[in-house]
Amino acid sequence: MANIQETQNSTTKNESLPLVYNHRSPSFNFSINEWLETKFQLLDPDHPEFSTLSQTVRALVVVGPSPLTGETLDKLPGLEIVVGSSAGVNHIDVAECHRRGIKVTNAGDAFSEDVADYAVGLLIDVLRRVSAADRFVRAGLWPANGEYPLGSKVGGKRVGIIGLGSIGSMIAKRLEAFGCIITYNSRKKKAHVSYPYYASVNDLAANSDVLVVCCALTKETHHLINKDVLTALGKTGVVINVGRGALIDEKDLAKFLVQGEIGGAGLDVFEDEPRVPEELCGLDNVVLSPHRAVATPESMVAAKHVVTRNLSAFFANKPLLSQIMPE
Amino acid sequence: MANIQETQNSTTKNESLPLVYNHRSPSFNFSINEWLETKFQLLDPDHPEFSTLSQTVRALVVVGPSPLTGETLDKLPGLEIVVGSSAGVNHIDVAECHRRGIKVTNAGDAFSEDVADYAVGLLIDVLRRVSAADRFVRAGLWPANGEYPLGSKVGGKRVGIIGLGSIGSMIAKRLEAFGCIITYNSRKKKAHVSYPYYASVNDLAANSDVLVVCCALTKETHHLINKDVLTALGKTGVVINVGRGALIDEKDLAKFLVQGEIGGAGLDVFEDEPRVPEELCGLDNVVLSPHRAVATPESMVAAKHVVTRNLSAFFANKPLLSQIMPE
Repeated sequence: MANIQETQNSTTKNESLPLVYNHRSPSFNFSINEWLETKFQLLDPDHPEFSTLSQTVRALVVVGPSPLTGETLDKLPGLEIVVGSSAGVNHIDVAECHRRGIKVTNAGDAFSEDVADYAVGLLIDVLRRVSAADRFVRAGLWPANGEYPLGSKVGGKRVGIIGLGSIGSMIAKRLEAFGCIITYNSRKKKAHVSYPYYASVNDLAANSDVLVVCCALTKETHHLINKDVLTALGKTGVVINVGRGALIDEKDLAKFLVQGEIGGAGLDVFEDEPRVPEELCGLDNVVLSPHRAVATPESMVAAKHVVTRNLSAFFANKPLLSQIMPE
Repeated sequence: MANIQETQNSTTKNESLPLVYNHRSPSFNFSINEWLETKFQLLDPDHPEFSTLSQTVRALVVVGPSPLTGETLDKLPGLEIVVGSSAGVNHIDVAECHRRGIKVTNAGDAFSEDVADYAVGLLIDVLRRVSAADRFVRAGLWPANGEYPLGSKVGGKRVGIIGLGSIGSMIAKRLEAFGCIITYNSRKKKAHVSYPYYASVNDLAANSDVLVVCCALTKETHHLINKDVLTALGKTGVVINVGRGALIDEKDLAKFLVQGEIGGAGLDVFEDEPRVPEELCGLDNVVLSPHRAVATPESMVAAKHVVTRNLSAFFANKPLLSQIMPE
């Protein structure tokens, strides 16, 4: 009852709250509005005073992966900050924001654990054939066919992590507990990280049993994993992708998987979601996931807190929680 | 070539090697014989001098889960040791061996990591719905149905481990890296273990989000997980079983899952393998696995080493590597 009272109060005193532009694809189902409305006055394009308020609004919240381009920014000349609610920001034209002097924040580490957990789940699944074995049992093949082929041991595997940010570091921490041997690639060698660093993704692949792709998608990382990298990874190598689909040349990957030129893949993301290459759907050494590494209901709550804290910090002229700095 | 030469030599000098009775179900496909034949003279029931040699053979190797009962022991009056090649020994009548003064060894920790890895894989799979999401994608439902429901966060879950032996301890170590909160039940509280201990499985279940069953199957642990424990675990609770099927009352479990009275299950073992309760095969909150947690090709090699080292230690009057002590 206390909460309902609070919400009613906040609605009536709405206009005294800081104004925040609510940028969202109508299709995206992430119920952050009710939460935000207790602390901010949300401005939508159908607001009766939109033409006036859009000229002065200083903050914008991007709900989920709703694309944000210069076209929207043009309508909001007073904008100073774009507050993202997801970890990845490739749906936001960050360069254009920075060119206009607009700060950008993301969800920080709120979803990192979920993504790391899922990456490890996919890795175990591909190596130990969990999903494939589940299909085998459900199809009633166990009594008929007898023993299902054994998978491959997780411990001792050389895991090359591409992108050792907060997600990559959490993946490394988890896999160390399984006895995996961690190496990594990133734009620069990280100080204070003891895992061996490879400046070249090709070299990393050549020295890895498993590649885990969890870096940001940028112009530079587009199709970072191509046929050369897959060739270097080799016939028993496994690729896990929890980053973005376009980090991998999907045509090359599908070809290598179909032809048995790599060992397997665990893919949570694809180049043209929700389209998944049809030729992968018949393979038992592949785990296909509909972009679900990203979050759990628990981390959604954590992300709402990060969004709120970034907005509140901005309006209070305090340091932002998770600002993306210009390149 | 060196290996072939060695095998040929060992075959010719076979009779000077220590005699070991080779106990195996013909159906069990675990190629340990070629390996053992380089170090021991293997005695099979079809050996021409079986009736004589069976009276004097001192050691027996149990290949895989081949059942070993008093009937076989009766034929081998000179037997002093039974060397198992698997982690679990519920297929061996250990009490009867000990009654006759026969030592028993198992595969020690050779398979523990594999079982622990798989248990964690099942846990992530059930909580984050990996196999179910893979089915969703393969069925072409992603473009049609849109977003697949999010799973539940691994971190922060209270995981109650039943049986904190080598496998249970390795599961705990792995899950700690995910931020899970570990508690356990075992016959006795373990000295030097800081995880909270519950003497009652019911109490453990009442204080857990996930129960991981990985204790030995004995008369005392048969149907340890029954409807009372499942009721205590509750509607969102998850059961993972990588122990033996009969540790759980499978009828109760199936009923609770079908009726939504627990949250989900990851099951590698069943009461009447390879039979799996049909009513489970339609459930999306269940991961079904055909008893494959047990091993990988890598750990098979490790187990062969343990078998060999136990046999060699026995014939050299040295301490055994992984002896199962009488109760």
